[in-house]
Amino acid sequence: MYVESHARSVAKAVSYRALGTLGTMAVVYFYTGRIQLTFAVGGLDLVVKIALFFFHERLWGKVNWGKKPVEPSVVWFTGLSGAGKTTLSARLAERLRARGLKVEHLDGDSLREIFPATGFDRQSREEHVKKVGLLARYLEKNGVFVVASLISPYEDSRRFVRGICRNFIEVHVDTPLEECEKRDAKGLYRRARAGEIQNFTGISDPYEAPKMPEIRVNTAKVSVDEAVDQILSKI
Amino acid sequence: MYVESHARSVAKAVSYRALGTLGTMAVVYFYTGRIQLTFAVGGLDLVVKIALFFFHERLWGKVNWGKKPVEPSVVWFTGLSGAGKTTLSARLAERLRARGLKVEHLDGDSLREIFPATGFDRQSREEHVKKVGLLARYLEKNGVFVVASLISPYEDSRRFVRGICRNFIEVHVDTPLEECEKRDAKGLYRRARAGEIQNFTGISDPYEAPKMPEIRVNTAKVSVDEAVDQILSKI
Repeated sequence: MYVESHARSVAKAVSYRALGTLGTMAVVYFYTGRIQLTFAVGGLDLVVKIALFFFHERLWGKVNWGKKPVEPSVVWFTGLSGAGKTTLSARLAERLRARGLKVEHLDGDSLREIFPATGFDRQSREEHVKKVGLLARYLEKNGVFVVASLISPYEDSRRFVRGICRNFIEVHVDTPLEECEKRDAKGLYRRARAGEIQNFTGISDPYEAPKMPEIRVNTAKVSVDEAVDQILSKI
Repeated sequence: MYVESHARSVAKAVSYRALGTLGTMAVVYFYTGRIQLTFAVGGLDLVVKIALFFFHERLWGKVNWGKKPVEPSVVWFTGLSGAGKTTLSARLAERLRARGLKVEHLDGDSLREIFPATGFDRQSREEHVKKVGLLARYLEKNGVFVVASLISPYEDSRRFVRGICRNFIEVHVDTPLEECEKRDAKGLYRRARAGEIQNFTGISDPYEAPKMPEIRVNTAKVSVDEAVDQILSKI
């Protein structure tokens, strides 16, 4: 991100005005061939144009048409491990960025890397979700779209996050457990079934499915792009 | 925050060009009184100006002079209760906003209102500070200046925050304990001395003063504005 310095803005304005006046003078000289008239027109034109620019800006300053307030949202993906949250959310983030919007993708696993001591018991999970929710709240407040992907298995902490954000869009990635377990890209379900991982959502820990999410997606039935289109239509 | 719609930008460009050409025509007519010449100059002027604007923009696009990258910082105020952190940080935030920058002020007490269950034992405090640090990291990453004011009494969590932010400026508000206790605006020191508040920093809990903060301020010796000027010179 860059800002234009005052000096640069002034230099651009002056150079454009100079160029513009020279252009007008060239046109007048082209038609009349009269040096004196050319300079007279150029001189007066300079003054008139600066005044016109000023009034033009003042006038438009009173018109609100065409000014669109940026209202970011927090799109929160919840669902079982392997349901497709990361894939969907990454695609959504990409599509929003392509529209020139500021986007932050908060992924549960990546955030756990910053806080490696975060556990998987109920309290730790609730706190983890709330912590990410707080982040989402402040980013949203500062004009940044937030795409969050966390299992976020408990109703309680999801309600907390909804409460502190402005435009909260809950996306339940509702891929059936059997399908998630069949995919098992990271081999986590196998290890959970073998008892090597404790508190595994869907196996040894409950997943409290959202009752009224803004959007429900079953990745076993719709494609990534179809799902993302559906979400974008709600933003 | 607003963005200008494409339609508004186009409308402004067209209306300005129309106004500009009418201005030129008025000047030519004023000097010559010749209707035909006036329209000929106006017509050609229109074409020439649009071309000139285009080349002018392309040319300036190649010049980097005057483009300043926005590099936000995280200014982190640490110090005893009553040291003046909130006053200093609020003034700093105000001064940064006055420069047209995006600023988020994260105050320890206000954030505890969102997480009312946060305790004052060592672990809770460390986690609270880290949580706010995470917030600061993501806001900074998205172009927002962060001004944080928290007692943040432990070296450990302050080092963690420094590690995850890009431009971390630690301000130790080093007002002596006696002075803080004398002010005691909220009556907290009195209650801590009476044993009504536990784990009170400086009384019944340690304050690990930063060894090498970027800035050290003693509010008993310098005014708020002097201190803020000193901080601004480091940003």
